[in-house]
Amino acid sequence: IDCHECSQKIMFESDNDVELEISLSLDNNVLHWRSDCYWKQDKEIIDDDYVGLSATTLTTNQSLVSLMKIKADGILLEKSSSLMEVSEVYKLNLTKGEVKVVERLVVNLVDKESTTNIDKMFEDAKEKLEKLSKEGFNKVLNDNISYFTKVWENSDIEIGGDDKNQQGIRYCIFQLEQTYHGYAKDNNIGAKGLTGEAYSGHAFWDSETYCLPYYLFSNQEAARNLIMFRYNTMNYALDRAKDLDCIGACYPIATRNGKEGCNLWQHASLQFQPSTAVFYAIYHYMNLYNDEEFLEKYGLEMIIEISKFLLSRGQYNSTREKFSFYSVMGPDEFQMMVNHNTYTNYMAKKVFDYLIDIIIKDKYNVKNILKKCDCSADFIDNLIDASNKMVILYDEITKLYEQHDGFFDLPHIDINSIPKSDFPLYSHWSYDRIYRNDMIKQPDVLMFMFLYNQDFTFEQKKANYEYYEPRCIHESSLSPSIHSIFACELGKKEEAKKFFEFATRLDLDDYNCNTCEGIHTTSIAAAWMNIVYGFGGLRSDKKELSINPMILDDWTYYSFKINYNNSTLKVNVDQNNVTITNMGEKVSLKVYDKLYVIDKELVVNIKNV
Amino acid sequence: IDCHECSQKIMFESDNDVELEISLSLDNNVLHWRSDCYWKQDKEIIDDDYVGLSATTLTTNQSLVSLMKIKADGILLEKSSSLMEVSEVYKLNLTKGEVKVVERLVVNLVDKESTTNIDKMFEDAKEKLEKLSKEGFNKVLNDNISYFTKVWENSDIEIGGDDKNQQGIRYCIFQLEQTYHGYAKDNNIGAKGLTGEAYSGHAFWDSETYCLPYYLFSNQEAARNLIMFRYNTMNYALDRAKDLDCIGACYPIATRNGKEGCNLWQHASLQFQPSTAVFYAIYHYMNLYNDEEFLEKYGLEMIIEISKFLLSRGQYNSTREKFSFYSVMGPDEFQMMVNHNTYTNYMAKKVFDYLIDIIIKDKYNVKNILKKCDCSADFIDNLIDASNKMVILYDEITKLYEQHDGFFDLPHIDINSIPKSDFPLYSHWSYDRIYRNDMIKQPDVLMFMFLYNQDFTFEQKKANYEYYEPRCIHESSLSPSIHSIFACELGKKEEAKKFFEFATRLDLDDYNCNTCEGIHTTSIAAAWMNIVYGFGGLRSDKKELSINPMILDDWTYYSFKINYNNSTLKVNVDQNNVTITNMGEKVSLKVYDKLYVIDKELVVNIKNV
Repeated sequence: IDCHECSQKIMFESDNDVELEISLSLDNNVLHWRSDCYWKQDKEIIDDDYVGLSATTLTTNQSLVSLMKIKADGILLEKSSSLMEVSEVYKLNLTKGEVKVVERLVVNLVDKESTTNIDKMFEDAKEKLEKLSKEGFNKVLNDNISYFTKVWENSDIEIGGDDKNQQGIRYCIFQLEQTYHGYAKDNNIGAKGLTGEAYSGHAFWDSETYCLPYYLFSNQEAARNLIMFRYNTMNYALDRAKDLDCIGACYPIATRNGKEGCNLWQHASLQFQPSTAVFYAIYHYMNLYNDEEFLEKYGLEMIIEISKFLLSRGQYNSTREKFSFYSVMGPDEFQMMVNHNTYTNYMAKKVFDYLIDIIIKDKYNVKNILKKCDCSADFIDNLIDASNKMVILYDEITKLYEQHDGFFDLPHIDINSIPKSDFPLYSHWSYDRIYRNDMIKQPDVLMFMFLYNQDFTFEQKKANYEYYEPRCIHESSLSPSIHSIFACELGKKEEAKKFFEFATRLDLDDYNCNTCEGIHTTSIAAAWMNIVYGFGGLRSDKKELSINPMILDDWTYYSFKINYNNSTLKVNVDQNNVTITNMGEKVSLKVYDKLYVIDKELVVNIKNV
Repeated sequence: IDCHECSQKIMFESDNDVELEISLSLDNNVLHWRSDCYWKQDKEIIDDDYVGLSATTLTTNQSLVSLMKIKADGILLEKSSSLMEVSEVYKLNLTKGEVKVVERLVVNLVDKESTTNIDKMFEDAKEKLEKLSKEGFNKVLNDNISYFTKVWENSDIEIGGDDKNQQGIRYCIFQLEQTYHGYAKDNNIGAKGLTGEAYSGHAFWDSETYCLPYYLFSNQEAARNLIMFRYNTMNYALDRAKDLDCIGACYPIATRNGKEGCNLWQHASLQFQPSTAVFYAIYHYMNLYNDEEFLEKYGLEMIIEISKFLLSRGQYNSTREKFSFYSVMGPDEFQMMVNHNTYTNYMAKKVFDYLIDIIIKDKYNVKNILKKCDCSADFIDNLIDASNKMVILYDEITKLYEQHDGFFDLPHIDINSIPKSDFPLYSHWSYDRIYRNDMIKQPDVLMFMFLYNQDFTFEQKKANYEYYEPRCIHESSLSPSIHSIFACELGKKEEAKKFFEFATRLDLDDYNCNTCEGIHTTSIAAAWMNIVYGFGGLRSDKKELSINPMILDDWTYYSFKINYNNSTLKVNVDQNNVTITNMGEKVSLKVYDKLYVIDKELVVNIKNV
């Protein structure tokens, strides 16, 4: 049973004598998109000391018990219950200059298994409410202050000379911490966090791909638990693979509890980036923390099951000389049912190669885990063969990766010729029309080049950025930051700045006019990456961490923090220097490709690309 | 208002004296798939002379009035009405050896526009019923006899030494004539005719592609009216093109009244064979009847609007050197969202070339029709350029057409290795799995090679048949006959026979266990083609008609009839000779590539391939 305690203190003051009537409620009558109700009310309680209610969700059978206690400098007029709501009404007599205080204390208990009797939950809640009542509002306030003090100590980002982005990035960090801090293993990060109804509360591959880095560098436990969500829900991924006539673990494209929740077959059945993202998360986490116990107990099993899935979904071509994925959709959702999608193939090959290495070296008790996962005797041979024959569409001369078979020959559309009124295209174009141009919704080739950045040369990154960027319309809010990160690396300051402008203030300024549907929680994480991986040039896709900072011309300085191997490094970048202060244990870090062991402080001159 | 008169005569005879009670009803209470009712009852009438009822369809607002009159050798017990039903009950006292007769006469009036008052329709129906009643059962019987006498005179097929197929093919012809005889321009041929609920009464490209040939060679007016359905519903096709962000006429993949009725976007938006089939029907009809008035008044407008659609849906590749259709589904529904589907491209090129020829020669008042269709000044240049640059994937060495870009390199599946219990695959395989093998559902390359048979050499047909046939699982009942026709031409007697076995008795023997959903009306038409185009070797895809008969070893003879240019030719084929008897005007016909003018009779020796 999860317990959430909330507390609110409202202070009233008036210039005149005035009589106020205030009503404070708990209600269960919020409707999804103002139409659908997914729970039923069980019980209301009106007691001398508190009011409360309980509800149970209809399909998932989870119970919620809420109790509320009010301490008010006023007279209780009424306690009442109506349909799915309990209220207390107070009269406050304000005299000029006098301050009256109303404190509201709430305890929410959630039983996701619905194994506990509701009355018992009410009793538990009452006990917790009494304790909370004794401690009062200040206790909750102080808990909050102490939590966020640590957050800012560990994770604050400063931007000198750019108040708007300064406010924006702090808003992002605050929202990330509001949404997820890893205390519960069955929580994940919805695309809208807990703030809105769009995407129906679903979490996507965004969690591992866009959000995880923030936690990797601020809260190891939260990072680990975010990955553990996938271990704890692996049974659903095993079932899902069977639904697709495959074996192993196919992770859902959209989910609340681990089950596939996407009701569009073309996405749910053709997109495999969630599965390769789970591997990438484990790989990424291992790069930083080398948590062998985690790998042996949980990670390896996931990697094996993901590999089994990828092996069974992949196919050999007609001559059996090549292995590939047919009829897939990569991260770019404007190209459906394509063959040889390089993102899918590259990401799968990395899974295979990582596992092959472990099996060959016989590490982490792998033989027993292979047995546990019911792997056939030829499993290792199959992995090696598939990896060796994996189709990777690459042109040595142009240094371009082709997004999928035939992409380069697709009809060209000048994305600047599309009238503004046609956007978003999903709402204005015939569905099929979106899929038959060399236009992309979000990075696909650039995405695997971002994730495995150090696998590629500067020239490769430059060539592919310059080919794909003009073809990308960024109809995903996750897209601009990735482009900004490349632009930083490639020394394209203007573009880096232009794409960064979409990052920190998407919801504060609501420039897409859809924050009412919920904030863009996972884009917010991309904003963090935009600064740390983009301007800061952090690279964490190999065992050795490195930074390559640059700075925009109109910033006086910026700083960010990374927590890593028991150190908290503050990286401060101004127009002249990069200053790295270490507030923890000695740690090694590459700066501009030179390896340093940083004890207290390191200062190096800033370099331009 | 359409009027349908039906009459039924039931004769009762008994070995013993017996008292019978019989109830005869009209009812409107049939539910679609036993659940959905698409009309509402308006009125019931119980009169001394008759009973009746009327109903109106809910979404299309069409009215039906039915009146029934009973003449019985018995005593009327009751006339009653219940929910959506009116009945008459009679007592019949049968004495041994005595015959008692009950005649039921019914008049149905249908107002598809619902412009006529229901009471007025009842009056009209009453008048017609009185007339029918005077004429009696025998009048309807005689009308029927005279109609079907003409059918058998014009269209009978005989098969000597094969009673099962003899019965089968006559059943096919009977069902075709039951379903469509061209008397109404707003009727078409549902895939199930009027016999069942599968496909919801929808007509497909089957009408032009599989059914039209039967009518072309038996009933010119019916053939012309079947094509006129598309002219009369062109407004819906113009609207549909707009839905797809295109211009011109996009004909529906499934329809009752001309509107797109298919609710699967991937079929409704990606399959263009209905549009090219409408052109093919006009082309085919013109080959035989050279009906210039039809072409000028109706046909050319359709061809221009179809061309406009194809031009606007097609696209140039990245270098603009090639024109093609991207993200389409050809006739083979196991390959979705492919590029350069050769069927689509070849069929479109034929439309363009036919129209280009007419425009260049300035025939059939084409300039005015182009103006009427609002064609731009560069329309002709666009047609020529698209046709010249149309991608046709063909390998000179192997003589193979590739079904679409990448087909030859798709993972191979041995279709014989698929367990019988996996069929039908739509019900047993994960949806995406169907689409990622070199397995096809029905002919695609072979389909355009069938339709434009004489464009291709024997070697080309042989190569493509031998490549695609082993990859085809015939999950469409339209598929085997096309393969049988190729096998006949290629001298593969065993295969010709094997595929023909699926043709004539599909519903009589119900071997797919789905005749309860309605008979396979359009497959039945393919059975007719199987004999006439297959064994008979009829070719009608050029102006000059030709036949190249062969005969199966276990048939003593077979004969078929083709009506053409005011002649009715009976082609009789036995193990030695082909005998052609002409019952009409002198006509020219190629037999085994030699041109004959046939006056009364022609006998030539049978040739084997």
